[in-house]
Amino acid sequence: MADLTGKKVAFLATNGFEDSELTSPWGAVTDAGAQATLVSPESGTITGKKGHEATVEVSSAEATAADFDGLVLPGGVANGDHLRMDAASVAFVKDFFAQHKPVGVICHGGWILTDADVLKGRTITSYPSLRTDLTNAGASWVDEEVVVDAGLVSSRTPDDLPAFNAKVVEELAEGKHAEQTA
Amino acid sequence: MADLTGKKVAFLATNGFEDSELTSPWGAVTDAGAQATLVSPESGTITGKKGHEATVEVSSAEATAADFDGLVLPGGVANGDHLRMDAASVAFVKDFFAQHKPVGVICHGGWILTDADVLKGRTITSYPSLRTDLTNAGASWVDEEVVVDAGLVSSRTPDDLPAFNAKVVEELAEGKHAEQTA
Repeated sequence: MADLTGKKVAFLATNGFEDSELTSPWGAVTDAGAQATLVSPESGTITGKKGHEATVEVSSAEATAADFDGLVLPGGVANGDHLRMDAASVAFVKDFFAQHKPVGVICHGGWILTDADVLKGRTITSYPSLRTDLTNAGASWVDEEVVVDAGLVSSRTPDDLPAFNAKVVEELAEGKHAEQTA
Repeated sequence: MADLTGKKVAFLATNGFEDSELTSPWGAVTDAGAQATLVSPESGTITGKKGHEATVEVSSAEATAADFDGLVLPGGVANGDHLRMDAASVAFVKDFFAQHKPVGVICHGGWILTDADVLKGRTITSYPSLRTDLTNAGASWVDEEVVVDAGLVSSRTPDDLPAFNAKVVEELAEGKHAEQTA
């Protein structure tokens, strides 16, 4: 596996996240040597849909993409639905694209990419309910275990996590991708 | 209040509906004399996010818009997220537009309208998280208590139910609207 020593990875989530979609990629990037940081519009702790509690380290309002080498967006329908309504979270996500940095997104995590308006011409997958929304935002939606498009890594459900984690680590190791842009 | 005697109104929902957004408009249309029917991709009973149980009378696969004078789409994020993935439910919704029949939609109920592709040029409101999705599907999104656009009645949250119910009953009483189309 690639070595991510010295890399900083932000995870953006709020209450109702799909537990394994936070914990599993978090384990993968930290096992590879990266430092992971939980960013959220909430303060204190957030709770996953199955009860996992995670401590928020930086608020969305104070977080800046310049401090990180990449971003992971876990799913969970309530998590995805709420995050996209927080303007600071949307701006934080958009800046990773503007800075050409790798972004991993799974399940319902992709909705915020439509609000950030970063999907025109990109190829992506997601939980199937988002297909129309991502397509209408300009993306080409495909039904695959994992899709890699120049720094943008996407998967559909927790079943895809092994493939998702491997590609997230790989893209983080590669660093910036010029075609990843806002 | 308008008299809906002899009118048949379909309510389309699945598990996770916003309880009051099913029960309140249901009460309003039946109080006005209409017959209400619960349509769902699920059989037996469905349960709202707060625990209200409702008996499914017709499956989405067997339901046909020709049997009804109008449709109401309650919200609830899980309800809206799941319904849109059911092809029979999407086709059922689209047919109300093709037949120029009134449709009331509230909160997260509007997602399925993007999958039915019936929003080009229409004015609508919704729970705020859907704004980008409805806009990208061709609608003009506004932030108002209730919006009426030629047979399409929309509101944002349970707080809007009194205004929503009144306009749903009014549009059902008026009958078909030529500009309501698919």
